[in-house]
Amino acid sequence: MHWTHKDLLDVCDLSTGDVERIFETADSFMEINRRPVKKVPTLKGRSVVLFFAEPSTRTKTSFDVAAKRLSADSFSLAKSGSSLSKGESLKDTAWTLQAMNPDAIVLRDSRSGAARFIAERLDCSVINAGDGWHAHPTQALLDAFTLRRAWGGEFSGRTVTILGDIAHSRVARSNVNLLTRLGAEVRVCGPRTLLPPRLDTWPVTVCHDLESGVDGADAVMCLRLQLERQQDGLLPSLREYARTWGLSRRTLRKAKGGAKVLHPGPINRGVEIASDLADDADSLILDQVASGVAVRMALLFLFLTRKD
Amino acid sequence: MHWTHKDLLDVCDLSTGDVERIFETADSFMEINRRPVKKVPTLKGRSVVLFFAEPSTRTKTSFDVAAKRLSADSFSLAKSGSSLSKGESLKDTAWTLQAMNPDAIVLRDSRSGAARFIAERLDCSVINAGDGWHAHPTQALLDAFTLRRAWGGEFSGRTVTILGDIAHSRVARSNVNLLTRLGAEVRVCGPRTLLPPRLDTWPVTVCHDLESGVDGADAVMCLRLQLERQQDGLLPSLREYARTWGLSRRTLRKAKGGAKVLHPGPINRGVEIASDLADDADSLILDQVASGVAVRMALLFLFLTRKD
Amino acid sequence: MHWTHKDLLDVCDLSTGDVERIFETADSFMEINRRPVKKVPTLKGRSVVLFFAEPSTRTKTSFDVAAKRLSADSFSLAKSGSSLSKGESLKDTAWTLQAMNPDAIVLRDSRSGAARFIAERLDCSVINAGDGWHAHPTQALLDAFTLRRAWGGEFSGRTVTILGDIAHSRVARSNVNLLTRLGAEVRVCGPRTLLPPRLDTWPVTVCHDLESGVDGADAVMCLRLQLERQQDGLLPSLREYARTWGLSRRTLRKAKGGAKVLHPGPINRGVEIASDLADDADSLILDQVASGVAVRMALLFLFLTRKD
Repeated sequence: MHWTHKDLLDVCDLSTGDVERIFETADSFMEINRRPVKKVPTLKGRSVVLFFAEPSTRTKTSFDVAAKRLSADSFSLAKSGSSLSKGESLKDTAWTLQAMNPDAIVLRDSRSGAARFIAERLDCSVINAGDGWHAHPTQALLDAFTLRRAWGGEFSGRTVTILGDIAHSRVARSNVNLLTRLGAEVRVCGPRTLLPPRLDTWPVTVCHDLESGVDGADAVMCLRLQLERQQDGLLPSLREYARTWGLSRRTLRKAKGGAKVLHPGPINRGVEIASDLADDADSLILDQVASGVAVRMALLFLFLTRKD
Repeated sequence: MHWTHKDLLDVCDLSTGDVERIFETADSFMEINRRPVKKVPTLKGRSVVLFFAEPSTRTKTSFDVAAKRLSADSFSLAKSGSSLSKGESLKDTAWTLQAMNPDAIVLRDSRSGAARFIAERLDCSVINAGDGWHAHPTQALLDAFTLRRAWGGEFSGRTVTILGDIAHSRVARSNVNLLTRLGAEVRVCGPRTLLPPRLDTWPVTVCHDLESGVDGADAVMCLRLQLERQQDGLLPSLREYARTWGLSRRTLRKAKGGAKVLHPGPINRGVEIASDLADDADSLILDQVASGVAVRMALLFLFLTRKD
Repeated sequence: MHWTHKDLLDVCDLSTGDVERIFETADSFMEINRRPVKKVPTLKGRSVVLFFAEPSTRTKTSFDVAAKRLSADSFSLAKSGSSLSKGESLKDTAWTLQAMNPDAIVLRDSRSGAARFIAERLDCSVINAGDGWHAHPTQALLDAFTLRRAWGGEFSGRTVTILGDIAHSRVARSNVNLLTRLGAEVRVCGPRTLLPPRLDTWPVTVCHDLESGVDGADAVMCLRLQLERQQDGLLPSLREYARTWGLSRRTLRKAKGGAKVLHPGPINRGVEIASDLADDADSLILDQVASGVAVRMALLFLFLTRKD
């Protein structure tokens, strides 16, 4: 049964069967990542270009680790130091990279739709590692994979609250789609200035205060607050934001007992999440990072062997 | 029959026999680059330093891909983040790198003569990946290799026009030398402000307008127009440059039928080359990129195994 | 006999037996580094993160070369392009990296104590590649290893003079500790504005002029002069510094015959060291670089196999 997708642009392109297959594959890689020798020859001789036009530690390093653990070669390109800095168009850079015959290009770009634009013009696999506010499918997959492991597989009957700057978040958009399709009930919660328009068309409950957002939730996923939103006039002071919207042990008390806490990172301690809560036993923040490597190994494996 | 050169500084150091050997070696690597598993163990345990003091996507990535496809280890150094940014001299940086026992250093530097200066002071192989306006031998080799494959091997009787900013172009200088020695007739064509002095000593025909430059040509190689030339007062507006000197389907009409179009990239669409022409069937721009990997694999193979 | 240390934070954590073991291991790797095929499979499947928040050519490349010669995978992170540039704390970046299951993190940071702070919070090995003015243990180990090879193993009865900006030098601090414990007599010598307070508690002789500092020394280790010290008002002009404190063939004449000259690099030719002296037969500056790779291979080997 071959993997039939050429590209991973957003989670909505994946069936729930596809998602299940990614999760089962990732489960087997979680085990490899705990061995002393964390390497298998599966993708030897395959090559992956990591083209990140925006700064990134965890996503880029995670893909790099994933590629090398499967014995693939990886090639990193940043915007600075690349021809993009000489004014070359993204399309031409992508075509140039493809002409070197990589098996996949992993792309992060600040423009929504960049990954799809490139994928339609390339024969090799394109994996979207975040495009503007639009989508971040590998983050959503690793978030769901982390919750699945924490909950023993079951999403139905679970409520996940996504908290913070929903409007500008590709993480929120991809998670809403994936989590609802897996059977969870999703709430979004944040100040009105940071909620997107047309939220009535999303399959979510909207909560306009933290207390009702958290009430009875099985998990709360904090989003990173981009500090530049303050300059855009969308928030009062950070201190006031933290007081009204910051998740802490106290404000989490209304959630279910043992409610899980997630954050895609990097975290602003004391702003969107209290420092002690980020380090609590029910915080899955570092599990998300570990899951990220396994999920990206699974994705590279499935996409790069699809023609074998 | 061992390869006897220590360094590749410019194409004039290579005999036509050397060039033929590079091309035959590159032919065999073209085939490997189309396999699903694009890797051979030939240079396992060898190491190559990629020291690029100027930004570069295609040349640097191309060498990196070439090294890894042959199983060599590659080490990338940029100017920022290296000791050059602390004021260390190029010579001292190069000596330091050599003390780590690499097999070759691939060097790009904005100063003409940088590669020769370094090569004379190092025991390991130095491969010039572009030094100022002076030379870019691997580009000329991949350009000729691309034309050779397009033309079935024969250069004699062929006319190649190099079009644009000849004065500031290392690509033009290296191509003129190589293409004429392989038997092609070479024309250079561009505005007077962008032609170098003493062009009468070059083995080329000089054309002062696009129409006569292109007339009857078998191939036209556009050069990238550095947009800063405008600030230097060497060109009128970009729009006027494009109208007078830009290659398009229309202005190419006077060339031979099926004339090939080349460009070292990155291209300025709509300036030195019309966008639709860059994507035409007779455009070899992406073939050049693919050839680049194979030619650099051939060079790394020949230089790194010369002592075996 | 397993290696029992989790981290390498400073040389004072190592017993002289540990140091001897590092040196013997490095001796065997010096031999590998001279082979045509400079690679052994010892650390295949292990991974090392190189996290350098300050620019570095030699230390970072040296670790990278060392890792790959042992077949480990290495992952480079710079401050720019990482989440540190988004305001993430060093601790959170380190935790994130650890969650990807590397075997060691090699860390350079401008803050004294950064490596210890991180090591106390991580389970994986942390190797300090320089923290502020505090410590640079791998530099001290490679310096001592270089002298040991030059001197045939014996430190007792030898005098080493460390010359220059002692106050701001992690290299000086780590070298004083290691060299004295190995049996050498150590002098520090430099202008009063560049000597640290409480030097009476160091196991060294302090010399306030170059002539007495060098007199009868078996080796002189120049330190790099950070040119920004001039802006701090700690030195007169560079020319005057060079005249008073610069090491040259002439000012070295009072040292023992065949006295060795060391410098951690990058050197300021004509400031702290005369250009011709840097290139003399008794200069060990490039030997230090070669030793650096072998010593770092030894360290990676010992720390990464400690649990096997």
